[in-house]
Amino acid sequence: MAQFDLPLAELETYRVDVDEPADFDTFWAGTVAEAREHGGGPELGRVDTGLTEIVVDDVTFPGFGGHPVKGWLARPAHADGPLPAVVEYLGYGGGRGLPHEWLGLAAAGYAHLVMDTRGQGSAGGSGGDTPDPVGSGPAFPGFLTRGILDPADHYYRRVFTDGVRAVDAVRQVDGVDPARVAVTGTSQGGGIAIAVAGLVPDLPAAAPNVPFLCHYRRAVQISDTLPYGEITRYLSVHREHADAAWRTLSYLDGMSFARRARAAGLFSVALLDDICPPSTVYATYNAWGAASTGVEREIDVYPYNGHEGGQGYRFTPTLAWLGKHL
Amino acid sequence: MAQFDLPLAELETYRVDVDEPADFDTFWAGTVAEAREHGGGPELGRVDTGLTEIVVDDVTFPGFGGHPVKGWLARPAHADGPLPAVVEYLGYGGGRGLPHEWLGLAAAGYAHLVMDTRGQGSAGGSGGDTPDPVGSGPAFPGFLTRGILDPADHYYRRVFTDGVRAVDAVRQVDGVDPARVAVTGTSQGGGIAIAVAGLVPDLPAAAPNVPFLCHYRRAVQISDTLPYGEITRYLSVHREHADAAWRTLSYLDGMSFARRARAAGLFSVALLDDICPPSTVYATYNAWGAASTGVEREIDVYPYNGHEGGQGYRFTPTLAWLGKHL
Amino acid sequence: MAQFDLPLAELETYRVDVDEPADFDTFWAGTVAEAREHGGGPELGRVDTGLTEIVVDDVTFPGFGGHPVKGWLARPAHADGPLPAVVEYLGYGGGRGLPHEWLGLAAAGYAHLVMDTRGQGSAGGSGGDTPDPVGSGPAFPGFLTRGILDPADHYYRRVFTDGVRAVDAVRQVDGVDPARVAVTGTSQGGGIAIAVAGLVPDLPAAAPNVPFLCHYRRAVQISDTLPYGEITRYLSVHREHADAAWRTLSYLDGMSFARRARAAGLFSVALLDDICPPSTVYATYNAWGAASTGVEREIDVYPYNGHEGGQGYRFTPTLAWLGKHL
Amino acid sequence: MAQFDLPLAELETYRVDVDEPADFDTFWAGTVAEAREHGGGPELGRVDTGLTEIVVDDVTFPGFGGHPVKGWLARPAHADGPLPAVVEYLGYGGGRGLPHEWLGLAAAGYAHLVMDTRGQGSAGGSGGDTPDPVGSGPAFPGFLTRGILDPADHYYRRVFTDGVRAVDAVRQVDGVDPARVAVTGTSQGGGIAIAVAGLVPDLPAAAPNVPFLCHYRRAVQISDTLPYGEITRYLSVHREHADAAWRTLSYLDGMSFARRARAAGLFSVALLDDICPPSTVYATYNAWGAASTGVEREIDVYPYNGHEGGQGYRFTPTLAWLGKHL
Amino acid sequence: MAQFDLPLAELETYRVDVDEPADFDTFWAGTVAEAREHGGGPELGRVDTGLTEIVVDDVTFPGFGGHPVKGWLARPAHADGPLPAVVEYLGYGGGRGLPHEWLGLAAAGYAHLVMDTRGQGSAGGSGGDTPDPVGSGPAFPGFLTRGILDPADHYYRRVFTDGVRAVDAVRQVDGVDPARVAVTGTSQGGGIAIAVAGLVPDLPAAAPNVPFLCHYRRAVQISDTLPYGEITRYLSVHREHADAAWRTLSYLDGMSFARRARAAGLFSVALLDDICPPSTVYATYNAWGAASTGVEREIDVYPYNGHEGGQGYRFTPTLAWLGKHL
Amino acid sequence: MAQFDLPLAELETYRVDVDEPADFDTFWAGTVAEAREHGGGPELGRVDTGLTEIVVDDVTFPGFGGHPVKGWLARPAHADGPLPAVVEYLGYGGGRGLPHEWLGLAAAGYAHLVMDTRGQGSAGGSGGDTPDPVGSGPAFPGFLTRGILDPADHYYRRVFTDGVRAVDAVRQVDGVDPARVAVTGTSQGGGIAIAVAGLVPDLPAAAPNVPFLCHYRRAVQISDTLPYGEITRYLSVHREHADAAWRTLSYLDGMSFARRARAAGLFSVALLDDICPPSTVYATYNAWGAASTGVEREIDVYPYNGHEGGQGYRFTPTLAWLGKHL
Repeated sequence: MAQFDLPLAELETYRVDVDEPADFDTFWAGTVAEAREHGGGPELGRVDTGLTEIVVDDVTFPGFGGHPVKGWLARPAHADGPLPAVVEYLGYGGGRGLPHEWLGLAAAGYAHLVMDTRGQGSAGGSGGDTPDPVGSGPAFPGFLTRGILDPADHYYRRVFTDGVRAVDAVRQVDGVDPARVAVTGTSQGGGIAIAVAGLVPDLPAAAPNVPFLCHYRRAVQISDTLPYGEITRYLSVHREHADAAWRTLSYLDGMSFARRARAAGLFSVALLDDICPPSTVYATYNAWGAASTGVEREIDVYPYNGHEGGQGYRFTPTLAWLGKHL
Repeated sequence: MAQFDLPLAELETYRVDVDEPADFDTFWAGTVAEAREHGGGPELGRVDTGLTEIVVDDVTFPGFGGHPVKGWLARPAHADGPLPAVVEYLGYGGGRGLPHEWLGLAAAGYAHLVMDTRGQGSAGGSGGDTPDPVGSGPAFPGFLTRGILDPADHYYRRVFTDGVRAVDAVRQVDGVDPARVAVTGTSQGGGIAIAVAGLVPDLPAAAPNVPFLCHYRRAVQISDTLPYGEITRYLSVHREHADAAWRTLSYLDGMSFARRARAAGLFSVALLDDICPPSTVYATYNAWGAASTGVEREIDVYPYNGHEGGQGYRFTPTLAWLGKHL
Repeated sequence: MAQFDLPLAELETYRVDVDEPADFDTFWAGTVAEAREHGGGPELGRVDTGLTEIVVDDVTFPGFGGHPVKGWLARPAHADGPLPAVVEYLGYGGGRGLPHEWLGLAAAGYAHLVMDTRGQGSAGGSGGDTPDPVGSGPAFPGFLTRGILDPADHYYRRVFTDGVRAVDAVRQVDGVDPARVAVTGTSQGGGIAIAVAGLVPDLPAAAPNVPFLCHYRRAVQISDTLPYGEITRYLSVHREHADAAWRTLSYLDGMSFARRARAAGLFSVALLDDICPPSTVYATYNAWGAASTGVEREIDVYPYNGHEGGQGYRFTPTLAWLGKHL
Repeated sequence: MAQFDLPLAELETYRVDVDEPADFDTFWAGTVAEAREHGGGPELGRVDTGLTEIVVDDVTFPGFGGHPVKGWLARPAHADGPLPAVVEYLGYGGGRGLPHEWLGLAAAGYAHLVMDTRGQGSAGGSGGDTPDPVGSGPAFPGFLTRGILDPADHYYRRVFTDGVRAVDAVRQVDGVDPARVAVTGTSQGGGIAIAVAGLVPDLPAAAPNVPFLCHYRRAVQISDTLPYGEITRYLSVHREHADAAWRTLSYLDGMSFARRARAAGLFSVALLDDICPPSTVYATYNAWGAASTGVEREIDVYPYNGHEGGQGYRFTPTLAWLGKHL
Repeated sequence: MAQFDLPLAELETYRVDVDEPADFDTFWAGTVAEAREHGGGPELGRVDTGLTEIVVDDVTFPGFGGHPVKGWLARPAHADGPLPAVVEYLGYGGGRGLPHEWLGLAAAGYAHLVMDTRGQGSAGGSGGDTPDPVGSGPAFPGFLTRGILDPADHYYRRVFTDGVRAVDAVRQVDGVDPARVAVTGTSQGGGIAIAVAGLVPDLPAAAPNVPFLCHYRRAVQISDTLPYGEITRYLSVHREHADAAWRTLSYLDGMSFARRARAAGLFSVALLDDICPPSTVYATYNAWGAASTGVEREIDVYPYNGHEGGQGYRFTPTLAWLGKHL
Repeated sequence: MAQFDLPLAELETYRVDVDEPADFDTFWAGTVAEAREHGGGPELGRVDTGLTEIVVDDVTFPGFGGHPVKGWLARPAHADGPLPAVVEYLGYGGGRGLPHEWLGLAAAGYAHLVMDTRGQGSAGGSGGDTPDPVGSGPAFPGFLTRGILDPADHYYRRVFTDGVRAVDAVRQVDGVDPARVAVTGTSQGGGIAIAVAGLVPDLPAAAPNVPFLCHYRRAVQISDTLPYGEITRYLSVHREHADAAWRTLSYLDGMSFARRARAAGLFSVALLDDICPPSTVYATYNAWGAASTGVEREIDVYPYNGHEGGQGYRFTPTLAWLGKHL
């Protein structure tokens, strides 16, 4: 991929006037409240992984609609005292996989909750285990256009709510310090982390990498890759539904959640990323915390990478940054 | 595509010992009965198409679970007397589209009911309008692995039942002769027509073209194209679920429905078809009506075509054949 | 395909100074006159289609050089009184196919003449039946560079003339009202419709969809897809023939025909169309009728579609518009 | 390309029962005689190439129908005495290019006539200059299906006749020894060389490399690449014309010409060649001279090459072999 | 990828008569001895990873020619007593990456040495750090044809020797039990593990996954993917070097090393793997330990996977198996 | 490829401020001097080609480090008196091939030395014969990132020096006029010719076609094709090495060599070339001779070609231009 988006200097000041629905906050406050009304907390079951230095629990917690959502909670085997925690959301199509696949943060002394993404986890890797019990109208294969005609029905309304409930859940786990919880994720996981940071007011830190689910209009205009391209393909068929679709997406845009975030934010972006184009990331990064004052943010730039971004190179700076903020 | 499957001479005698579950008939009898218990009949609303020679109704009828399923019913504008009817099912990803897109059979004097496929209709053409209100566990994008761990949950359990209920519905329409109803379809639509022919004992005629949903094991072995390939991709992730998946698919195999068919069958097959390989079609064709005696069957072979098969060339022989059997 | 051409606001005012040869009108007047000198009219033979509501004739009429050109003429079976007619030209590589494939306009009460494209009709669908008895110099596989070194020899000189003669022919058919004839077509068919509208001064209406054969220089500059790319591929070999080629194409450009059109024009354009880029369509649309005054024009925009454009969605607005103009 | 055709041991004995039309010899004798009746001989014009060691003439000679066919004739600048000659035919889509592009055989002391292929020469390289003034019915883009419904109309009837007339022409050139003329060519050029060897009884030598235009039925069955695939694509549209097409091709098959050849034959074949599959080459090679006795033949095998075959590695063995046979 | 290789039942008994050079053992004994003569042992430097449960050392040890080879050695932070060790070799093009990327085996109580592959580590992931100071003759881009004209010069002579010296190195590390060392690796890493198991007589266990570098002749015949395809591409150019190349590869074939292995072997294979086709894996697996008696071997089969094979699903069975054998 | 780079009018004035290292001249003066210190001259051996008009010698001369570099020297068989000479460098991946493949310049009366490129010649054509005995650190497959962390180690330091030594060598050949030596080449060969023209002050003429190895930063930004893309791929893995890599490349940029050239320059450029984008060629062309005065330069533009550029069409203008300058 050659450089196809704005030059870095323009990205750094790229800001967008978001056309946000008037009832954005009402919509989300109601959604989260309704989910919490289902009650319940995380259920943990220790997994026999064969590991001696890390313990992993199989976690089930109530998400949107009280639906059971799965996750792994990995922790150092010999830790004592309440641990800071990191909730991680996953990339598009992936699942929580197997318990031994999430060792880095636990080996660094964190409680690490990896949240499955409902209905996903069959498109690579070691899979996922969480159904999405809700159906949808006609949708392009994938998840981005499920329920696209009404924000109340949209798939990511459920997923973002699951993300909030994952934070709720980890805060209830014995041995976790509920005040010291961060969220993170890459690609779709980064987009969920941004949404959760916009919905949970007392998060200290959020670290989205090459986030998806941001500035849909720009994404669709500048790139035709999937999954953003699911919107284009859907609208190329349902030519009469463009207005309804864009209205729905306006309730789900990372730029709107970013404005509301109060957590310190650590972003990463890749300049050759045609899956999550850098202008969509910067539009969100530059809006981070805009609705408050004094919200810290940083961004690491990978000039020669596509959507793989920083990969393993993210671990060390993220660890250092978590150390400062948790 | 070069010739990749068996030579024609071997295809003509290609028969497979199907490993059918013992409760196949019970499963399906229960499924259909349950759907019929929801009751209700077709609701028709005349559409303003601007056409003067053909009238089209927007149809809604109760499918699996009583869920509303959409369709178009096209008829000659000046017909009198009860008409013979053809129920048509659609190809994978497509939808019923627009009312003026289905004129051929109506212009030939038939009542033509085109059934939408639930949840589909966003991957090309003019789209579909029927939601699938049922969610699923993790699935590869598409429809073939939705609910693949249990036949009760599988997507095509619902769709095949919708297909049966479409026949029920058209038989209740004023001006349609309930004794003279055929089913047809291409690709997925052919697969549904085969299932319906296996489930509705008193159908006079069924005309599947290059049918999908037949002999899954062979399909997966000989070709890796989608949508059969969705099974492979799912199992490449969920390595532990192969047995459950194959068990579920054994309730959904065209070969099993074909054995039970009593309708005259008109198949078509394309020898270079890597989407619905000819051996999967012949395995089904050669099983057609095997559980009864005297069931007629014919097959038209397109030696130089891929999955497009006969396309427009199917119309004339199908019309002639319908004339004989309805 | 991401948005690769000008933004819509710029397209709407995109006008081009066409470098038209001085003898453009002489060239074409001579060409059409010569074809008409061959005389002859349409020969019709009723086809046994099995349809009860629509009748179809197999038509042969004299085209360029008096060469026989084939078509289908579909009409309502029970019509009386002279009918308005629509002449339709076809997309690149396609042919008139089979008689039952053209039912929509006839079912709406029109006489519908579908003209075969000489030499084409072997690259998909149900094929064509009209030879092009004229050979050519070396040409890139396809049709756009056949005879490219001299406008007198160019393939589209013959095809556009066939298009004019198709209008002449339908006007001679019993039961057709010669004053109420429109032309239409998609892609190549749209380009032919534009040429015919520029050459036949008394056409009431022309409806080109995503037209090809417009603003070749821009097309070649902004996209490398076939068939426009045939020009580039030819010139990449025949490096010494660029001037001759561009001179020839200047006699064949939709922009020049559009200026001369007096018919009301209904265009459609797709913003992600890399086969017939939107700027080449708008350059032509914005020139429509410019040589006269008071020529009506409208354009429907499909923002999320590629070259498939509006597909079935074109039928209803086109029908309404034809109703106003015929 | 992995090894997709028969193993070498089977290729070496691969023989095919050709279904040859009864009037094959009559058809071709008439065709060649008719071409020769047009009379005329080669016209030569010295080209200013800037070369000091090689002279090149621009040649025009009468081909099929007396149509002018172009070529280059390259010879050593300082030769005296009549020279042996090699007539070379070209690969699909290519043309004679530029005069300095054909120096090897002339630098080795041969008169080297490179024959343009009518209508071709716009699909790469430096192009061709010979029109094909004959049109055709609908054909898939390319040349193999032009005139495919009647052997009298087929494109290769004209080209093979041009090939014979090229031999006639070079034999009339001053300074060429008419008894010492060989034919050669690669891919399509090899197929033409085989045809010419079957039609000119007194040729001493023919050297086809990875020849095209041999055993069409096998080619179409085992590979779907172009240009053999043009047949499949044509028949996938014109489903009703398969018999006519195969009949026409039976007049044009290298296997039939090879049987009649009396020249010594030097073939080359590449085992990974999916353009001209090795079994089609061996079927022809194994038939070489079968209608006579004592016809010599050799074949060089390239086990790790695709259609590029021996490329530059052919020069030295071909030169040595020509030295023996001319 | 459809099933393109032998069916499983045939794979299970697929044995190959290897044409092994007479001096195979001499060649390798001399090679290893020469490398050991360079002396030296591993140098370790503790890395600041930020991890609390795992410690990682940056390791440099002398490989072939005494050249410095890099690796990471990861161990549990709180272990005491000598640990069993696993040496892991890497896939083609990859490098040792970053220290925190190798936590699983250390978290399970093993010393885990990850060996960089000389010259590799620039084609994805987090990179490698080990130069290959030796040049080569002309080679297809990649590593498989470097030095292919002479076994003494071949790249994998150096790499396999590095692999042996990695075992030597880890056995010298304080806190590692030298008697309890296993080797493992995936793809290229599996191929190296097999070679090392054939060269180090006292290894208790070797676990190659979907190994590369086995039965080159079969690989090249049945698949054209890279990197096996590098051989074909090289030989397609250097047509005269096939014998020399095959002779060189006969010193480097996993089948020959496997025969000599005495370690217990745990293989895995994927039936749709076109990179390392299952027949090449089974040919090696079925030869495992054939030169001795009583050598244990097991193989896990992934029927629906390509070259990704078992991925994360390998961890648990490998851990259990290591527990039995170390 | 559509037009993706600057329009021609902007290219014609496109100039770049090169960030050249201060010790550029010292670095290269030292490099060349060191190579010359190894001494030695060309060794020639007459090849038995079977040609009668051209003689070819197999040449070995000392290159960088005194390493033996191979070439062919082709000359007219009957020439007398000292000949002007042309040294030609080769495209990426290719080798000198076979002796009869280089006849054009010799047939025009020149001594023509074709220099093999060390380590290359296995990726197509007839191959190369020159090893590169120097290894490298981790590099992306190919040659552009070998030794990229230090200019002293970079692969092209060696190749450019070989190029200078080829000129030295041909000047020592009996029968060659040392004052009348030009350099030429296409793609990589053009890049080497530019470097040699910048390093050898008394060359009369240099003719690079569509040159590679120019303005790396622009190339990487505007196109992602290989081989320029090797830089991007390397840096996408070795995220920490960007500065070192760009520093190394600043010693190897055609723009810097072009400034220092004193030879007359004949460039060619193709406007659709995405391998060697036209802006990188023009940036170099516009810098040609800038450090001196009165340096002649010309450029031929191919507006409809990709990287194939002028191909055979280059011969005649190059010959005419050489006639003027040698």
